[in-house]
Amino acid sequence: MDRPSPLSRVRIVLVSPETPANVGAAARAMKTMGLSRLVVVAPACDVHSAEAVRLAHNAEDVLANLEIVPTLDAALADVAFSAATTNRVRRAGLPFDAPEQLATRLLPIAEKQSVAIVFGRESSGLTTEEVVRCSVASTIPSATTVPALNLAQAVMVYCYALYQASLTTAEREYEWSLAEQGEVEPLYRHLASTLERLEGRPAVSMDLWIDKFRRILARVPLERRDVALLHKFLSIADRAAVRRPSTADERSGS
Amino acid sequence: MDRPSPLSRVRIVLVSPETPANVGAAARAMKTMGLSRLVVVAPACDVHSAEAVRLAHNAEDVLANLEIVPTLDAALADVAFSAATTNRVRRAGLPFDAPEQLATRLLPIAEKQSVAIVFGRESSGLTTEEVVRCSVASTIPSATTVPALNLAQAVMVYCYALYQASLTTAEREYEWSLAEQGEVEPLYRHLASTLERLEGRPAVSMDLWIDKFRRILARVPLERRDVALLHKFLSIADRAAVRRPSTADERSGS
Repeated sequence: MDRPSPLSRVRIVLVSPETPANVGAAARAMKTMGLSRLVVVAPACDVHSAEAVRLAHNAEDVLANLEIVPTLDAALADVAFSAATTNRVRRAGLPFDAPEQLATRLLPIAEKQSVAIVFGRESSGLTTEEVVRCSVASTIPSATTVPALNLAQAVMVYCYALYQASLTTAEREYEWSLAEQGEVEPLYRHLASTLERLEGRPAVSMDLWIDKFRRILARVPLERRDVALLHKFLSIADRAAVRRPSTADERSGS
Repeated sequence: MDRPSPLSRVRIVLVSPETPANVGAAARAMKTMGLSRLVVVAPACDVHSAEAVRLAHNAEDVLANLEIVPTLDAALADVAFSAATTNRVRRAGLPFDAPEQLATRLLPIAEKQSVAIVFGRESSGLTTEEVVRCSVASTIPSATTVPALNLAQAVMVYCYALYQASLTTAEREYEWSLAEQGEVEPLYRHLASTLERLEGRPAVSMDLWIDKFRRILARVPLERRDVALLHKFLSIADRAAVRRPSTADERSGS
């Protein structure tokens, strides 16, 4: 059996959310990024409303299993490390992390113990009293303060940062399986021979021509199958060049 | 005058969006992350509806200035490099980038020319014909395929990745201005002297005590002002220790 992912020990805590749509969208963002534990402190709206369920869109299980607790202290009682999210950098004097920094700080702890990221009300965020309950503060670097991200967008960014941090580089980045130089080189020889065949004679300044093609292809990150495709294209031209005289023969013979 | 940010040359293209709320939320995500150019291809909803404006929340300028064009080709005509977003990895055989890879690929081009990230319909994404119009494809690594992110969440992730990529490391990560070891060391000496003073005599196994405190404080990333605060606390204790006999005197004299 797989060891449970540290992501399963990261809880998202929403303090008095006011909009069911945000709770639903937060659940969707969480599930998509491998998180499942949603805790709502003293909700200021119906967190199971039809609107919440609609926005959760296949993350209804996260929504259905959310815990409602009366206070932030209750939400954090069994948490080993917590982060308060806020727009105001240096608010309440806590040290600040950006989302990626926070993710790399939280995940090693979440290997064994619960951690939490705490989000405030849509209208007014977290109070200073709530911020200082947490181990660190965190804010999302942004180009503007108004508009700030909305609650669900902020949850999205943190869940995304957490999931990315949980991946190895190989899992995080797609590999372009590029052809190596040695595999591309025969393509230029093939091109030269095709051109000669099409022209019916050794082409003038062939090397110059080929160098121009080199200039184009060298800046394309060519995959192996791209090289294969280009060879195929040249082979079609090769066959056409060979067939040409015989086509002329057939025509004359018809 | 500041040179315009490359972010101003990144356009977000929404192909036939079906939900005004998503268009509004996309505008908000864009503005917050320093993007401004929104292009909508053949909208399937009223992109300027009240719901769109409500979700845009102070990014109404992005919404008001959005361009509506009839075809994806029109949206990309003056674009030097474009990315099609899709859930289906390796769809249409295009090479794939994750959002961060894409951001680092796009921004250098956006220093001089326009680039685009293209998003499909909420219901069915981009068609294969639309995907192959673009230079590369991109998908957001996620833990699940269902639910996938919704349109506005996907736009959020890409805008966030772009803005992060546009920052220098110093701008991206908050600096914890930590105290250096040499600044923390006097704290332990102060603690030892305070303890001696409070106890009224040289404490037994003082070094052992101090080492226990070291163990705690060493794992706290202490900022300079934290060190100052702890000195202050010890000084209060120092004064109390000095005052104690005289307090006793005063009490006996009253």
